[in-house]
Amino acid sequence: MMNEEQRLQAQIDFAKEIDKEKQIERRTLISGASRFENDAEHAWHAALMAIVLQEHANEEIDLLKTVTMLLIHDIVEIDAGDTYAYDEQGQMDHYEREEKAANRLFGLLPEDQKQKFIALWKEFEERSSAEARFARCLDNFQPTMLNDATGGEMWRRNEIKLSQVMKRNERSKTGSQVLWDYALDHFIVPHIGKELKDE
Amino acid sequence: MMNEEQRLQAQIDFAKEIDKEKQIERRTLISGASRFENDAEHAWHAALMAIVLQEHANEEIDLLKTVTMLLIHDIVEIDAGDTYAYDEQGQMDHYEREEKAANRLFGLLPEDQKQKFIALWKEFEERSSAEARFARCLDNFQPTMLNDATGGEMWRRNEIKLSQVMKRNERSKTGSQVLWDYALDHFIVPHIGKELKDE
Repeated sequence: MMNEEQRLQAQIDFAKEIDKEKQIERRTLISGASRFENDAEHAWHAALMAIVLQEHANEEIDLLKTVTMLLIHDIVEIDAGDTYAYDEQGQMDHYEREEKAANRLFGLLPEDQKQKFIALWKEFEERSSAEARFARCLDNFQPTMLNDATGGEMWRRNEIKLSQVMKRNERSKTGSQVLWDYALDHFIVPHIGKELKDE
Repeated sequence: MMNEEQRLQAQIDFAKEIDKEKQIERRTLISGASRFENDAEHAWHAALMAIVLQEHANEEIDLLKTVTMLLIHDIVEIDAGDTYAYDEQGQMDHYEREEKAANRLFGLLPEDQKQKFIALWKEFEERSSAEARFARCLDNFQPTMLNDATGGEMWRRNEIKLSQVMKRNERSKTGSQVLWDYALDHFIVPHIGKELKDE
């Protein structure tokens, strides 16, 4: 068992280590399209959007749990790297790499916090609660919003097809039907046949 | 009164606008000292640290309220810019500029959410609750931690004096005596007479 000093030190070691999340680049452009977004910025944006948009969740949610999930959901990428949503090869061993990363990174924390964060991260990955389903919906909604705001540039650049976007989002509506409908009408449909291949 | 469609649109307009927070640069270096941190990354880091370190708050806190405060506390800087903690000139009209920014930015939201966020932001600024005192403590603790992790480089570069650091932190202990004691011993004292001027 850790004493109080060791417990605080473990928490601070974790706080220092996760600073590296700011260097994990995503395939989303920030507004103005000047550069790629990183995981820390994405987590901030999605967590704050969960607070603002909570009333649109399909089911009743524990907001603190949802926000915590979103704040920690990409920490594993410090070790496992970002896998682009449309990289099918990368998706294959993706879970295995991330599970190892979760054990190391959350393992810096005191045991009780380690267990809690790993459980939250798995719940998010498995969409096994109302909070996870809403959080996963936002995790897709946020980059789709930014992709639209930057003129669909990343879909154009990566030659993404409508069918790929629809497949990626096939369970988004289980978190929020309202947000999925909005995303489809406002962020996706306007790009079909233009930046987004319809085939 | 807004109808449901207008309400959702206002929330999404806000979500898009706050993306600009990712471009507000701070005077803190991220780990590795490769570049400055931005406000969105800082807010993510501080909010997650509030979750991990909550047991060290002096008073009992509502964690969701604390996390929400930290996620929104720098949104005003989209309009008002970042004022360096040790820029005395900049601090003078700082509150006035930020209040105007709060009205415009939170004013994008539906009225009930606008009022709630402005009240939370003011509470944070005024340290007028246990949550605000703990959040403010973390708002200082996080950059002090990073400054130590990057060898005190920003104190050296800006010729900061120990007295300035102590003044900036004079109320940090009202949020968490434990975290302030830790910061003093581990992040500040090792730099005295080196990167931090003792005079």
